Amino acid sequence: MKLANFSYAGRRSLGRVEGDKVVDLAAALGLASVEGLLAADALGRARRAGGTTIPLADVILHSPVARPAKFFAIAANYQSHIDEVLAYNPTYVPPVFQRWFAKLPSCVNDPFAPILMPPEVADLDYEAELAIVIGRRARRVRAEDAYRVVAGYTVCNDVSARDWQKRSPTIMLGKSFDSHGPLGPWLVTPDEVGDPHALRVTCTVNGEVRQDGSTAEMIHDCWDQIAYLSTVCTLEPGDVIATGTPKGTGAGLKPPRLLGVGDVVRCTVERIGSIEAMVVAEQVA
Amino acid sequence: MKLANFSYAGRRSLGRVEGDKVVDLAAALGLASVEGLLAADALGRARRAGGTTIPLADVILHSPVARPAKFFAIAANYQSHIDEVLAYNPTYVPPVFQRWFAKLPSCVNDPFAPILMPPEVADLDYEAELAIVIGRRARRVRAEDAYRVVAGYTVCNDVSARDWQKRSPTIMLGKSFDSHGPLGPWLVTPDEVGDPHALRVTCTVNGEVRQDGSTAEMIHDCWDQIAYLSTVCTLEPGDVIATGTPKGTGAGLKPPRLLGVGDVVRCTVERIGSIEAMVVAEQVA
Repeated sequence: MKLANFSYAGRRSLGRVEGDKVVDLAAALGLASVEGLLAADALGRARRAGGTTIPLADVILHSPVARPAKFFAIAANYQSHIDEVLAYNPTYVPPVFQRWFAKLPSCVNDPFAPILMPPEVADLDYEAELAIVIGRRARRVRAEDAYRVVAGYTVCNDVSARDWQKRSPTIMLGKSFDSHGPLGPWLVTPDEVGDPHALRVTCTVNGEVRQDGSTAEMIHDCWDQIAYLSTVCTLEPGDVIATGTPKGTGAGLKPPRLLGVGDVVRCTVERIGSIEAMVVAEQVA
Repeated sequence: MKLANFSYAGRRSLGRVEGDKVVDLAAALGLASVEGLLAADALGRARRAGGTTIPLADVILHSPVARPAKFFAIAANYQSHIDEVLAYNPTYVPPVFQRWFAKLPSCVNDPFAPILMPPEVADLDYEAELAIVIGRRARRVRAEDAYRVVAGYTVCNDVSARDWQKRSPTIMLGKSFDSHGPLGPWLVTPDEVGDPHALRVTCTVNGEVRQDGSTAEMIHDCWDQIAYLSTVCTLEPGDVIATGTPKGTGAGLKPPRLLGVGDVVRCTVERIGSIEAMVVAEQVA
């Protein structure tokens, strides 16, 4: 099942995506968003509910989670990406433990909305990632039970201001400019995704393939990530976990090929879908 | 004006603290929390509204913001703290730019609630800090205008699991165990605080003074912090900014004196108030 937040005729709703149509579930469920559905533990009802059918082409898709309470992202979780970082920064110290940072919830962006290039940023980059969306409150989940707390999966572009990232080893601000957390195009439930560690992850810029990896490459897999994070904090419905990126980032190419205004970035995860955005200069008053 | 989230007779409400009493404002304002009041931009109404008066001793005080969308904290913002860190870790690289990390919103704790010592943590520490609470949406605020976006101030104990903090340069997880973000005891509006850069900050453990500094020592003052953060992201009502800690942390003492079960930690900021918590072993099933 694919669940989407969308707007149609100026109204926000949630729906089940079926092929090239969306079934509007708001009336049947009495809920207005995917987050509301997760909080109400209503995935089962969403599967069975009916509603008005709208052509997918006529709706605006929104992030499947507009404002996650927690938006985690893991650094350096693909060896191919670690290798490319080491190639341009020989002093880089790869992680021993899982290396987590926050993307601020204010950076979440709709799946096809422009990525803003702020005047304060010089080095803008993309990172295509599989993202997990949490479905239930959980603390100290064992890796073997971790699949139970997953509501589904979506695609994340972990947009990165490399120059700001270099300013601080905590890297959070360089990862969190407004609009730098596109998510979507929808949430896909685990039954449709199958093994989350067998998915092709690609990123193209203006149609040219830049990243082409597989979630099989993850150093810490989805289950170990959930186990580790939930050792520290209570996971909650709607929390998002971006699981890392393979090689091919703009900073990692030789010579580097960072993003510029007008570039169109498309991130795809097999069995989930694609998100696509143009880089647009941010207008500042 | 002091604004508090509290419970009385099993019901949550918000109130204006006057001496040893709380004026319950929920009925007059039609709002149930300080966060709701900030979102409604109703500080002026809160100043004038009346309500039932309850002895402060009879209420349970809650964090003035239960779940901030963003809970920022700055590392190494007092030279005295940088010096003590360098003394025990000579390879430490002090910041050039403001060094920000997130405390996850799930770590927020009530001002007098126990601080949990998880079985997974060996080195638990305290950091008394002045915290800013944001009152309005703002992006790219100039330092000279930053006071305009401040709703008020509160006290934060930036509880730190030093062993987890050392695992990752991003430090977020070591700062974000559940219960490790006590805030309170209330929000104090700027008119009562005056210059936020002239406030004594102290921390005692079992009555013994461990930290005794002044917000005058900040390397990056409150206004520069707001300017820097809002360059990256949109600040929103209820966002919390922990502004850094002076010397005297447990890890910085010689020999180190970290927290243990049964210790009582009291953090005080002049003109704001005190929060106090006992360290309690977390029971894990």
